[in-house]
Amino acid sequence: MSEGELFAAFRTHERWMAEAMKEARSAQEKGEVPVGAVVVRDGLVIGRGHNQVESLSDPTAHAEILAIGAASGHGEGWRLTDTTLYVTLEPCTMCCGAILLARVGTVVFGAADPRAGGVVSTGRLLDGNPYRQQIEVVGGISATECGAVLSDFFQARRD
Amino acid sequence: MSEGELFAAFRTHERWMAEAMKEARSAQEKGEVPVGAVVVRDGLVIGRGHNQVESLSDPTAHAEILAIGAASGHGEGWRLTDTTLYVTLEPCTMCCGAILLARVGTVVFGAADPRAGGVVSTGRLLDGNPYRQQIEVVGGISATECGAVLSDFFQARRD
Repeated sequence: MSEGELFAAFRTHERWMAEAMKEARSAQEKGEVPVGAVVVRDGLVIGRGHNQVESLSDPTAHAEILAIGAASGHGEGWRLTDTTLYVTLEPCTMCCGAILLARVGTVVFGAADPRAGGVVSTGRLLDGNPYRQQIEVVGGISATECGAVLSDFFQARRD
Repeated sequence: MSEGELFAAFRTHERWMAEAMKEARSAQEKGEVPVGAVVVRDGLVIGRGHNQVESLSDPTAHAEILAIGAASGHGEGWRLTDTTLYVTLEPCTMCCGAILLARVGTVVFGAADPRAGGVVSTGRLLDGNPYRQQIEVVGGISATECGAVLSDFFQARRD
């Protein structure tokens, strides 16, 4: 990849991460931990989701699970091989597992999660996929913004 | 625990695993990989589920996720601290993560899954819970029966 191509790829990632951030803000408005995700195929969002654990009273209602569920029901079978998942926070163990099962092609995350992130922080759960597809991973896209909405949320909760 | 108490606990596990097996058979009737799960609190099933990945076109629609989702919406908040999850097959990475997030107290599984099981086979994902609750794990309850329904399914699919 040339420098120009790398820069273009980075800008594309930032653009879609902004869509995921919109979802994070929807979570924030509901008083949920602000994490958002979108699944993109061929330049179109085919699934979106934000954290709704409290609203749905369901601990599995993470942004990624809802976005993958929406994208998988999009009409071309449930495999998401040719898609990119953008998520504002490093996926947890559950969401890493969902990414593997869904055969997501590329995962782009924003802020790292030192406590529960399963991609690079507490484990490397996207390596050594038992379902035999290599997943491309990009971390740190718009990380400051993605992280700030979370720290603001937890700061406000403590106050 | 006395020998009598151990035996009684074993019988209780077998009884609830039979309920999870009923769910596995519901999956089988739909042509789904036959895995079933129930969540039990105070001697009552408060959530049940069977694998519905194909029917729902959703790779996250595993038995455990559906059972946990049902139990969490049961009316006393989404935390499942005082529950036992019975599942016919060793949970995968995603379902181990869901078990941690849901604060399930005890997990009892039937057959091990050497390819994708995250409890003892390919990892020990229920150890070192980032959400700070120790999970009790029992494996191998009615393992022969739980495994046979799966091997029969895959054998029939190959034929």
